[in-house]
Amino acid sequence: MRKRKESQELRTVFAANLRNLRQIRGISQERLAELSGLHRTYVSSVERAARNISIDNIERLAKALGAAPEELLGEKK
Amino acid sequence: MRKRKESQELRTVFAANLRNLRQIRGISQERLAELSGLHRTYVSSVERAARNISIDNIERLAKALGAAPEELLGEKK
Repeated sequence: MRKRKESQELRTVFAANLRNLRQIRGISQERLAELSGLHRTYVSSVERAARNISIDNIERLAKALGAAPEELLGEKK
Repeated sequence: MRKRKESQELRTVFAANLRNLRQIRGISQERLAELSGLHRTYVSSVERAARNISIDNIERLAKALGAAPEELLGEKK
């Protein structure tokens, strides 16, 4: 269903940006989980775009990475 | 609790940006609801920062407004 697919594009962008920024910071999923107060398996599933993450958790992850939330949502130019 | 409060800042930014952009577009909450496939009362609660909106719904609202998702997440400069 096209609508379903469209509604998951942003998750995919977010997932890629999150993984990329985490790796630039040189930290593991486990460390990011600790820093953000989220569970390690949750962070892992978000990086696979498998979870429909909420805005409060987007904020927690952005803060843990020292990034602006919009950096994690934007497509790479 | 400080942590709780901090985790709601981004919702507040999103809520203000959403309302602002919707008003710039000159459309009602009801019309935005129709365009995004969400419920009118849901759109209303998101604009009051009362809901922990998910990334899929952020995407739906951004598309309905013809905006980039990161425009809705960023603080006004």
